[in-house]
Amino acid sequence: MTTPIYARMAVIGCGLIGSSIIHAARAAGAVAEVAVADSSPQHRARIVELGYADQVTADPAEAARDADLVVLATPVLAMSGACAQAAPAFKPGATVTDVGSVKAPIAEALQPLMPEGVFLVPGHPIAGTEYSGPDAGFAELFQNRWTIVTPLAREDDSYLEAVQQLVDFWRALGANVDRMEEKHHDLVLAVTSHLPHLIAYNIVGTAADLEEVTQTEVMKYSAGGFRDFTRIASSDPTMWRDIFLANKDAVLEILGRFTEDLQALSRAIRWGEGDKLFDLFTRTRAIRRGIIAAGQESPEANFGRDHRA
Amino acid sequence: MTTPIYARMAVIGCGLIGSSIIHAARAAGAVAEVAVADSSPQHRARIVELGYADQVTADPAEAARDADLVVLATPVLAMSGACAQAAPAFKPGATVTDVGSVKAPIAEALQPLMPEGVFLVPGHPIAGTEYSGPDAGFAELFQNRWTIVTPLAREDDSYLEAVQQLVDFWRALGANVDRMEEKHHDLVLAVTSHLPHLIAYNIVGTAADLEEVTQTEVMKYSAGGFRDFTRIASSDPTMWRDIFLANKDAVLEILGRFTEDLQALSRAIRWGEGDKLFDLFTRTRAIRRGIIAAGQESPEANFGRDHRA
Repeated sequence: MTTPIYARMAVIGCGLIGSSIIHAARAAGAVAEVAVADSSPQHRARIVELGYADQVTADPAEAARDADLVVLATPVLAMSGACAQAAPAFKPGATVTDVGSVKAPIAEALQPLMPEGVFLVPGHPIAGTEYSGPDAGFAELFQNRWTIVTPLAREDDSYLEAVQQLVDFWRALGANVDRMEEKHHDLVLAVTSHLPHLIAYNIVGTAADLEEVTQTEVMKYSAGGFRDFTRIASSDPTMWRDIFLANKDAVLEILGRFTEDLQALSRAIRWGEGDKLFDLFTRTRAIRRGIIAAGQESPEANFGRDHRA
Repeated sequence: MTTPIYARMAVIGCGLIGSSIIHAARAAGAVAEVAVADSSPQHRARIVELGYADQVTADPAEAARDADLVVLATPVLAMSGACAQAAPAFKPGATVTDVGSVKAPIAEALQPLMPEGVFLVPGHPIAGTEYSGPDAGFAELFQNRWTIVTPLAREDDSYLEAVQQLVDFWRALGANVDRMEEKHHDLVLAVTSHLPHLIAYNIVGTAADLEEVTQTEVMKYSAGGFRDFTRIASSDPTMWRDIFLANKDAVLEILGRFTEDLQALSRAIRWGEGDKLFDLFTRTRAIRRGIIAAGQESPEANFGRDHRA
């Protein structure tokens, strides 16, 4: 067995991401001992049943005590509260990270809560499924996915070592790791994740409110494209509410551009400007090929998956 | 071997859907002989190589001659032209169908072209992939997918028999078959297929035009939701241009509602109205569960597929 990267890991908030980190870290031998804090009694009972934690508690401080790595994995708006509860127990030299989909507001909220000698290194694994809760995790979730870390603007050796150790941890879990400035992260994710979710939630809501088309029809004929949106729009409501509220500026900026473009497209349809439609559709096809060429997805993986009509 | 439902089938336009119909019909023994007409010399050469047709020609009339079933499978706006070329060769008693994603305008365009004693039964298999061309087809494409037929307002026995025969044909290919009034079809599909494609094309276009976020970043971090949109937005440009132009009224109507809803959502984010976001996200999650409960998709099928962050 390899030497663990962190002897004791505390996970505060144990949903899909928290439980996946535990499974993956155990599989990799990256931690020796795991403590979990979760505010839900149902979750705690289930985690005890599943048996993947050495300690299960309602109290973030109890889990964080003696931990070498503290992973905050609650919804985004609950993080500073959970961190404030745990902070008095943080061990000098410990690393505190998080998994939130928004980085600048989280770094800003957590930084003042850090005791002297504790290293805050915000992070974000870009991985997930539409499932949530302590049952949803699995060890392979981060394999070949990107995790972005957004270290603070500190250049002292002990901090840089803590950052490197967290990077090693994520690599041990199978992830590719990038570093990024936190505000840039929030803009990139507004495009690649937050806007797609917003659009998916919106289209599913629009479809549900139609009088002329029944819910049964929407469901029956969803293979034509709609079904992919329903999968995205079934992601955890609390998590996503928090993301949109926390990343408001970047999301509204990208949404504004999206809406402008959509109005132009609408106008092209109204006036029968087929060339404009064809040009856009050709361009977007090329982007997909770029993603496949970049190895982000194999074309075979989805062959036969059905989403057009 | 079972008796074929149609002795000779002509497929006019042999892309993903046309070639899949041929593979599926042959696998089911639903046809004895297959003729293909395609306007592209490259396609024709490739179809000869692949060897799944008994006759390959550039001339729709040549393929349609003696055919018991003629399947128009070109892009939507090319259908009436292809049909007009083929019509002089239509055999009395033959059935002519199509596979277009829009039904009212196609029925209106094709009906005047039908010779006496030839039965027009428009249809639409709700199935596809993001791949196109004569190589893309496979026999299983229609298995457990819906095909909608939109028969004309005719009640004579010979027409009703022709409709039933086409329904039997689609069932032999593995499809579930529904009948629908053509204008209603166009509204249902505007929701379940056309708007999702328009939105996907638009978001991929918006992302490509950003100055602050590079293409490489968009591709690298696309696992957060964006990637699903790129797959939809890589569908055939000609096919989709035609669909939006042909189904203009229904698409603009649904798009108008979508935009209104999106503005309300944008406002809720701007003003920090978390409850409104949470309520919508909870409602859309329930719709997804309805689709799974209705057996339109097994939850396991996508487990581990990654589209959130």
